[in-house]
Amino acid sequence: MSNQGFDDLGYARPDTDREARQGLPEVVYGPGKTVAQIAGVVTSLLQANTGPVLATRIEPEDARAALAAVPDGDYDAPGRLLVWRRAAPRGYRLAVVSAGTSDGPVAAEAAAVAEAVGLTVHRFTDVGVAGLHRLLAVRDDLVTADAVVCIAGMEGALPSVVGGLVGCPVIAVPTSVGYGANLQGVTALLAMLSSCAAGITVVNIDSGFAAAMAAHRIASRR
Amino acid sequence: MSNQGFDDLGYARPDTDREARQGLPEVVYGPGKTVAQIAGVVTSLLQANTGPVLATRIEPEDARAALAAVPDGDYDAPGRLLVWRRAAPRGYRLAVVSAGTSDGPVAAEAAAVAEAVGLTVHRFTDVGVAGLHRLLAVRDDLVTADAVVCIAGMEGALPSVVGGLVGCPVIAVPTSVGYGANLQGVTALLAMLSSCAAGITVVNIDSGFAAAMAAHRIASRR
Amino acid sequence: MSNQGFDDLGYARPDTDREARQGLPEVVYGPGKTVAQIAGVVTSLLQANTGPVLATRIEPEDARAALAAVPDGDYDAPGRLLVWRRAAPRGYRLAVVSAGTSDGPVAAEAAAVAEAVGLTVHRFTDVGVAGLHRLLAVRDDLVTADAVVCIAGMEGALPSVVGGLVGCPVIAVPTSVGYGANLQGVTALLAMLSSCAAGITVVNIDSGFAAAMAAHRIASRR
Amino acid sequence: MSNQGFDDLGYARPDTDREARQGLPEVVYGPGKTVAQIAGVVTSLLQANTGPVLATRIEPEDARAALAAVPDGDYDAPGRLLVWRRAAPRGYRLAVVSAGTSDGPVAAEAAAVAEAVGLTVHRFTDVGVAGLHRLLAVRDDLVTADAVVCIAGMEGALPSVVGGLVGCPVIAVPTSVGYGANLQGVTALLAMLSSCAAGITVVNIDSGFAAAMAAHRIASRR
Amino acid sequence: MSNQGFDDLGYARPDTDREARQGLPEVVYGPGKTVAQIAGVVTSLLQANTGPVLATRIEPEDARAALAAVPDGDYDAPGRLLVWRRAAPRGYRLAVVSAGTSDGPVAAEAAAVAEAVGLTVHRFTDVGVAGLHRLLAVRDDLVTADAVVCIAGMEGALPSVVGGLVGCPVIAVPTSVGYGANLQGVTALLAMLSSCAAGITVVNIDSGFAAAMAAHRIASRR
Amino acid sequence: MSNQGFDDLGYARPDTDREARQGLPEVVYGPGKTVAQIAGVVTSLLQANTGPVLATRIEPEDARAALAAVPDGDYDAPGRLLVWRRAAPRGYRLAVVSAGTSDGPVAAEAAAVAEAVGLTVHRFTDVGVAGLHRLLAVRDDLVTADAVVCIAGMEGALPSVVGGLVGCPVIAVPTSVGYGANLQGVTALLAMLSSCAAGITVVNIDSGFAAAMAAHRIASRR
Amino acid sequence: MSNQGFDDLGYARPDTDREARQGLPEVVYGPGKTVAQIAGVVTSLLQANTGPVLATRIEPEDARAALAAVPDGDYDAPGRLLVWRRAAPRGYRLAVVSAGTSDGPVAAEAAAVAEAVGLTVHRFTDVGVAGLHRLLAVRDDLVTADAVVCIAGMEGALPSVVGGLVGCPVIAVPTSVGYGANLQGVTALLAMLSSCAAGITVVNIDSGFAAAMAAHRIASRR
Amino acid sequence: MSNQGFDDLGYARPDTDREARQGLPEVVYGPGKTVAQIAGVVTSLLQANTGPVLATRIEPEDARAALAAVPDGDYDAPGRLLVWRRAAPRGYRLAVVSAGTSDGPVAAEAAAVAEAVGLTVHRFTDVGVAGLHRLLAVRDDLVTADAVVCIAGMEGALPSVVGGLVGCPVIAVPTSVGYGANLQGVTALLAMLSSCAAGITVVNIDSGFAAAMAAHRIASRR
Repeated sequence: MSNQGFDDLGYARPDTDREARQGLPEVVYGPGKTVAQIAGVVTSLLQANTGPVLATRIEPEDARAALAAVPDGDYDAPGRLLVWRRAAPRGYRLAVVSAGTSDGPVAAEAAAVAEAVGLTVHRFTDVGVAGLHRLLAVRDDLVTADAVVCIAGMEGALPSVVGGLVGCPVIAVPTSVGYGANLQGVTALLAMLSSCAAGITVVNIDSGFAAAMAAHRIASRR
Repeated sequence: MSNQGFDDLGYARPDTDREARQGLPEVVYGPGKTVAQIAGVVTSLLQANTGPVLATRIEPEDARAALAAVPDGDYDAPGRLLVWRRAAPRGYRLAVVSAGTSDGPVAAEAAAVAEAVGLTVHRFTDVGVAGLHRLLAVRDDLVTADAVVCIAGMEGALPSVVGGLVGCPVIAVPTSVGYGANLQGVTALLAMLSSCAAGITVVNIDSGFAAAMAAHRIASRR
Repeated sequence: MSNQGFDDLGYARPDTDREARQGLPEVVYGPGKTVAQIAGVVTSLLQANTGPVLATRIEPEDARAALAAVPDGDYDAPGRLLVWRRAAPRGYRLAVVSAGTSDGPVAAEAAAVAEAVGLTVHRFTDVGVAGLHRLLAVRDDLVTADAVVCIAGMEGALPSVVGGLVGCPVIAVPTSVGYGANLQGVTALLAMLSSCAAGITVVNIDSGFAAAMAAHRIASRR
Repeated sequence: MSNQGFDDLGYARPDTDREARQGLPEVVYGPGKTVAQIAGVVTSLLQANTGPVLATRIEPEDARAALAAVPDGDYDAPGRLLVWRRAAPRGYRLAVVSAGTSDGPVAAEAAAVAEAVGLTVHRFTDVGVAGLHRLLAVRDDLVTADAVVCIAGMEGALPSVVGGLVGCPVIAVPTSVGYGANLQGVTALLAMLSSCAAGITVVNIDSGFAAAMAAHRIASRR
Repeated sequence: MSNQGFDDLGYARPDTDREARQGLPEVVYGPGKTVAQIAGVVTSLLQANTGPVLATRIEPEDARAALAAVPDGDYDAPGRLLVWRRAAPRGYRLAVVSAGTSDGPVAAEAAAVAEAVGLTVHRFTDVGVAGLHRLLAVRDDLVTADAVVCIAGMEGALPSVVGGLVGCPVIAVPTSVGYGANLQGVTALLAMLSSCAAGITVVNIDSGFAAAMAAHRIASRR
Repeated sequence: MSNQGFDDLGYARPDTDREARQGLPEVVYGPGKTVAQIAGVVTSLLQANTGPVLATRIEPEDARAALAAVPDGDYDAPGRLLVWRRAAPRGYRLAVVSAGTSDGPVAAEAAAVAEAVGLTVHRFTDVGVAGLHRLLAVRDDLVTADAVVCIAGMEGALPSVVGGLVGCPVIAVPTSVGYGANLQGVTALLAMLSSCAAGITVVNIDSGFAAAMAAHRIASRR
Repeated sequence: MSNQGFDDLGYARPDTDREARQGLPEVVYGPGKTVAQIAGVVTSLLQANTGPVLATRIEPEDARAALAAVPDGDYDAPGRLLVWRRAAPRGYRLAVVSAGTSDGPVAAEAAAVAEAVGLTVHRFTDVGVAGLHRLLAVRDDLVTADAVVCIAGMEGALPSVVGGLVGCPVIAVPTSVGYGANLQGVTALLAMLSSCAAGITVVNIDSGFAAAMAAHRIASRR
Repeated sequence: MSNQGFDDLGYARPDTDREARQGLPEVVYGPGKTVAQIAGVVTSLLQANTGPVLATRIEPEDARAALAAVPDGDYDAPGRLLVWRRAAPRGYRLAVVSAGTSDGPVAAEAAAVAEAVGLTVHRFTDVGVAGLHRLLAVRDDLVTADAVVCIAGMEGALPSVVGGLVGCPVIAVPTSVGYGANLQGVTALLAMLSSCAAGITVVNIDSGFAAAMAAHRIASRR
């Protein structure tokens, strides 16, 4: 059915070849799709592949319906993530660091996706730079991580400080937390890209998913 | 001649009343003015007032010509500042902290203006957040200052960290140092305004002058 | 419990050291937090510190619930502020000047926060520059203030005019009042930063809180 | 030759009908045109019409060459304007008010164009809002004008204040004077459009020409 | 009570002097005010002045309540305008031209305000430039108007075409009609300010009010 | 009634001449119009013309009401399009290619409008560039099309790749699908305009309608 | 050597397959390339293909050197275009319409590229919308064209008017002609994309090349 | 001298602790520094550390002077990089892929920095997405790389396509190559951040340096 590397469901063409081609799961982005469409794509991927299948940004009610339609999955409510056939842990330690309590949903998505693809997550919450001792108290944990996902809204300063403390990969996630001059996260985004700490990389605003997948790419090549 | 509070020189109306009204010097902004115009305004202010008279953003060649036309002034080359009749020190300790070597000209302007109006300046250079120990090494000096002017380009993170260390007023100055996503300093400006550190204030990009004058306003009301 | 300078509540790490370190209260920003989280952080701060504890941007219903959970606080509805253990007045006179009636909520937040940390507030409402005599009528009150918080939306011209009248610190707050070319307050923000009045400082759009805390920093160093 | 209302010169089609159709001169915008092209269009207009012919934004060297090619014109150097067959004064009093010395070239263009089309110009220079008494000193002159062109860079606050003092038409011209948050005049432009003073109108950044022509339209319908 | 030129109502300071000073009504901007506040300011102005009193952007339900509180006013629903003591017509012909049906509310506000202050309005609806004959069919009506208010969203081209047809003042109003690249009216705003038609002026996005008041300023000086 | 080329319905002037003048239907843009207004304009066009009459962006409930008021039309729900008197197919093959499932509504509008004016549409869904084999699998279908409408949100890369595969006209439609750095489709818009593939053209964000009409212009001149 | 569809020259991989694959020439974009690199790529393409070879944005001195290195080409100075082996005319009439004299270089590039690939160009210069009779005078020529390239800076209104007159494809090119609110052509770009004329398409700012290639794509499928 | 982890040179505080702390070299950013300052910092770092010392964005003349002042370094002219004590190769294969010839300088910087810190670089030039076969021809080389740095200007589509082909880390670098809607690289930046390919990360515009350092962070943790 998918010997050309994808299924043609009419409303979608799930990339059934991605797992073999890249070692990455094809992931279903929920918004704008009906539960039936989500279930259809997930079913297609479960049949054609052997690894984890994810659906992101799923609200609780839709999650319940999707789990009823496609059994054996589970739902991470804080991270709004549906997972079927999660990967076994591979011993890759990913630190997920967030600046404020309000960055929680983004950190939750990053953690849920990372764990679904087999990474081991350590979370450090509310360690923003205005109270530096909170960050320095967990410094040793960060230094020994394999990679750090660093999440911050407002001025987005946290990755610059973390990037100066650790030598491992730092993936910065700007969030839309803040108001006024924060410009819905654009300010934090641009600030992180302008960081004085060398070798920091950045993903899209609020995309805990992108950060986790970037970590997965790194982990897969160790 | 100026009983109405200003001189009418045709090309300019120097506000001769400002010193009495506000305790602030009327300051001549150099760009777009001829040396003759600068000299004319300075002369008007020296006659009508008794305090310091400043001209900012003056290039060396123009400075020499202006000093020849209006004697008894002096020129601070790094800060591009001309000063006549500088104020006596008042014992107000202003820390001028800058993130990188390239922020030097802005820090120099802040320091030169602050000293011209009677503040005592302590400068701390190249203490950017990517090497936090450099900043922490001068922490005690910052904590005991009366106010801190905090200068940074790129992502503009320094004021957030400093603002979390000290309880005194922090005046943040974004600089146009950086490229790409820095957007000529706009990113640092917006980041500083979005700072998670409470009670930080911000002035215009590259305006060491504005920061010094803000400190002068604070100092004058102690 | 917090001998490392913070509490680790899981969802938050309140900076219990801030009061001792900076003389500033750690303040709880309400949006994005549950009432239980707000109550938890406030309780932590009340135990670890001796000064005022604030929670900002709290809607009335949440305020009632939080006051039920943590007694002995009070709620300022116009300023949407919860306060426990407010500071005694210190005799610092802060003028809070606003351009139009619609800027009221921002002025209310600035006033409520300032009073909670011990400043004495004098408010001047609806003194926009299009009817200059309204501002000039209160000029003497402004000239004798220790600092002025100056709040305006639309074109944000008020701080430039006030900044030319008084010699004390002027903290400008742009508001999102206006439409079209006002760009949700960004125009007023940029205009205030470009002000021709020397030494004006600016905080984030609609942030009466930031202005009050900036005044608190100044007041604390007199 | 131009019975269809324009000349076809190949490189340009001067609108020879505009004078009859609208009572406005067709004006030659200099930048991007050779002296020969400017002279060609001017000659066409002088032949087809009877009123003033203008060329704007002409640098001195080009002005000399154009005057040599098309005699009986004259050049206003500060306003960078070439005029042939200027209109007789019509008794319309236009006040041209500018905030700072650096706004001079824009004010000069506005004045030169307005006089070329027959308006009587009164200029008021350096009356920025940070020294309000300078503006209030000329208030009576503004109140009795037929219209006011109000020129300002930086935060662009002047038109709001002037617009609250006079009842006549106020045409605001933002200038690119300033730096950083001024964004090459965009901030002043947006601020003027957001003005709290009712009924102010705005033209393009640095366009003294547009302001003068707007005044000309008003004057022509009295 | 208002011998200082304003009333101090606590929540507002109506500028009771504006009518005498400028010949312009003080106008109440509705959004963000309670009906009681609107009624209070209107009452203050009706007592202190003799001319028209307006309140703009009033929704129908609030209008009914305000008219109940302050009798003898009337409500223009399409223009969302409340008027008390409207001015007698002065014989000034104002053409209000709009590009599309969706620009209707802005045109209605411009017309309602203009008539309230005594102008005579002629409306021309749906004459956008993509069907030029619709505009050319009313050309003679525009040419004989005293001034034209020209309203358009999308690309905002209409004022450029109208500005090339008539010699009288043209006041352009960009609207937020459109989507995507229209940027909520910012594109039309910038386009109108960049117009190739000489002497066109522009007011804020969707501000039929500002356009009418600009016309009123022009009309008052004939 | 419309011998001047339009009907004057008071609230609208339908351009009854467009069909004869340009061979294009006058199309009714739904938002901001009442059902009665839509029905009125449609009736006017059906009477004055002989070709298809369209109304775009019509929600289902309004569609039902409009079809009741003006019989013999039909409604395309996914494309939100009402059509009366659709054109006969002309044998012009238009490929409508979309990058993701979420771009569906825009593709549906493009397809519905194109078919209403007589084009034959072939749709290719979910062929985004991150799984290139899905696009290459339909390459032959694209190469033989007469024109391609290429719809994508997020980074808008699809038209660049398609534009390098086919020699026929490529009309790119950016969509507002995405979040954060996508800036509601502005990023995709600017990216498509910057495309390295030669001769690609672009229409407004989410405007399936504009793309279909552009194809119609091309088809009509074969 | 290029049986894989490209040459690998080290510094470039000319796409030798494009002519066969798409019927489009691979075109060399000059800026950032040395004359030797330009000559190398052109030589590669002349050998591998049989159709026209173009190099765009070439300054005169570089053009002379390139023609010396690769003989039998010719240079269009106004369009800054080098052409080898130009295509024979195919009888496709392309109208190139420009709003002002300053748009000349962009129109010249569009015309030169279009003629090099075999289209027949008719140019109409300086027909901006502020003098509409100049455009209406050439209306019949536009109506009978196969396609129209429509070039304008400032507010970019011309394509909307032309798009309402003709039924053939209209390709709009915004130019960076203008200042201030024109934002280096971005305003014209956004305005054209927001056009009320149905089915207009847009290419990048100042890209006469893109417009010509878009016309070539259309012409190639007649 | 640097037992506090940095040297205080007055004009700079080189972070001599970074090598030990992070395993990253402290790198000297050239612009805004004199040759003497560059030499001073480099000397400090050579003395305090044992690994590579780099100076970026150095023009040839300054490079010669710096090499004369601090011997035993070497200069990579295309990458504008000075290196002292380069690291031995570690067997980490980094693919540096660039879309066009004009992206060369950024690719050269990425390659030079990566090699200086011990990575093995394979470069693939001019493989832009408009001629996809050029990219597919090197697909096997990319699939077997340890990481890919992907450099593109204009619409920045290349990383999305590469990100769909390989499973290893992809670091995207937008360049300022392009004009108009490219907005000096901001469009490519935003497009890359919005990429539909999962797990791509992005660094600042034109920053080959940042990309190389990001790869170094990844390589150091294998």
